[in-house]
Amino acid sequence: MKQRDTVAIVGVGLIGGSIGMALRARGLARHVVGIGRRAGSLRTARQMGAVTRTTLDLARGVAHADLVIVCTPVGRIAADVRAAALACRAGALITDVGSTKAEIVASLEGELPRQTRFVGSHPLAGGERSGPAAATADLLVDRAVIVTPTVATRDDDYTAVAAFWNSLGARVVRMSPANHDRVLAATSHLPHLAASALAAATPEDDLPLVAGGWLDTTRVASGDAELWRQIFSSNRSNVLTALARYEGVLASLRHALEQGDEAKLVEILAEAKRRRDLPANDLPANPDYSWSQGNDRPPSH
Amino acid sequence: MKQRDTVAIVGVGLIGGSIGMALRARGLARHVVGIGRRAGSLRTARQMGAVTRTTLDLARGVAHADLVIVCTPVGRIAADVRAAALACRAGALITDVGSTKAEIVASLEGELPRQTRFVGSHPLAGGERSGPAAATADLLVDRAVIVTPTVATRDDDYTAVAAFWNSLGARVVRMSPANHDRVLAATSHLPHLAASALAAATPEDDLPLVAGGWLDTTRVASGDAELWRQIFSSNRSNVLTALARYEGVLASLRHALEQGDEAKLVEILAEAKRRRDLPANDLPANPDYSWSQGNDRPPSH
Repeated sequence: MKQRDTVAIVGVGLIGGSIGMALRARGLARHVVGIGRRAGSLRTARQMGAVTRTTLDLARGVAHADLVIVCTPVGRIAADVRAAALACRAGALITDVGSTKAEIVASLEGELPRQTRFVGSHPLAGGERSGPAAATADLLVDRAVIVTPTVATRDDDYTAVAAFWNSLGARVVRMSPANHDRVLAATSHLPHLAASALAAATPEDDLPLVAGGWLDTTRVASGDAELWRQIFSSNRSNVLTALARYEGVLASLRHALEQGDEAKLVEILAEAKRRRDLPANDLPANPDYSWSQGNDRPPSH
Repeated sequence: MKQRDTVAIVGVGLIGGSIGMALRARGLARHVVGIGRRAGSLRTARQMGAVTRTTLDLARGVAHADLVIVCTPVGRIAADVRAAALACRAGALITDVGSTKAEIVASLEGELPRQTRFVGSHPLAGGERSGPAAATADLLVDRAVIVTPTVATRDDDYTAVAAFWNSLGARVVRMSPANHDRVLAATSHLPHLAASALAAATPEDDLPLVAGGWLDTTRVASGDAELWRQIFSSNRSNVLTALARYEGVLASLRHALEQGDEAKLVEILAEAKRRRDLPANDLPANPDYSWSQGNDRPPSH
């Protein structure tokens, strides 16, 4: 991919910072402008080599950009995309990295200036760490990035956004915003809810005796509470559906334990083990999405 | 600790094999006898250097041992301890590594020959891996081993078992069998149940898009279904209590989501984060157990 002149990154945390570092390490942009609300984070991003210039002023920061990537918390993305669209040059491409897509994409549809080229994205990377100090140039290498065009998206814009993620080493998965949110409720948002509930349900007196199992199972509960509140609220109905399914399986396990139904207990545990072991092995096809850019295989873990 | 002549390990899987490797690496036993039910596992244990001799015959294997460690699945431990007690020399010390303690210890109390020196143990190590091929000589270094004497246990026997675990680099925690099972239900058995339910509740079509969060949260669900069935069945009432507490927290999260109660949602998530981040920092005191052998600090993670 030929070098861009200027890329603007709105929000230089773990993801924004890592994108900046990857752009610079791969020689993909002459200038990387970091835009933030806290001078401290911008300074860290500069020190990490994630950005070449920084500003607290979004409109100034995006003014000369060919590409704008909005990496702010889910609750602020739509407003930041709108502000970027009003301030950037005609023809600039805009994307985001939000963990939910339907609400964000819907709230922007028809609300952006006519020439705006916006396509939503969601890199499946990150986790419980946060902030630019945790950023790395290879965070997205071999990771899946879901790109969510709508019927209103121009083919060229989808292709340009997909090519951008591919240029950072990521694999692109094309899905509708609605399918994205339904799948992510099951694969990411429910796991976070389950892990948080588990940590909150562990009596404080017992914490000195937790070991590897508890630490693994609750790891994501260490993520920022307010960022996750925004994700859950933005994907409420899908999260509630996934949660109901989870509560149903827990009720089956409880019933099997109460009844001493050992066969049922081992049946559920064996099915859980089978699904847990699947992602590393044979992967089923899902008609709701496709792997694009010639990446005909799913991401490795 | 001075070298023992013969240690017998009944069941040479991950834990048994690791104990054997540690004994040999530290020069703590002249002979380590591996006793098992499958010639293949015994061969692997021999190849790993975990044992010096092997046999399929428990009575013959323990006949000359100073120390017998029963590392078989929870459902078989009591029977194997009984068989070892009948076949070993007077004065031999016997312990086990079972993930539950109350049922095992109670079923042995008063059922062993008079001179038998048995004290129950549970090393907090292992995880979803299994088999002797996964064994390592340092598996127990800096790990907590809970030792569970009863009113019938002689002080010397407790001290000898604790000293044995310390000699492998582990820290010893003294607890009653009942307290052990209550705490482990919260810190280990419920996490396994929660992780298994999550894996089982994830639609198979969505598995290609799982990322780090799902993989961490469900990791322990990869453990052997039958082994875990035995653990759950052996600690049923404590597991049901812990599960009820978990279902209560999930219900609060669901209610907060349904009602759009963002304050409640963030309150639970923040409390979960606080508890998740505690084990690495300040640890509360628990009156139900004590750290022994001069280890006045809890295990590191």
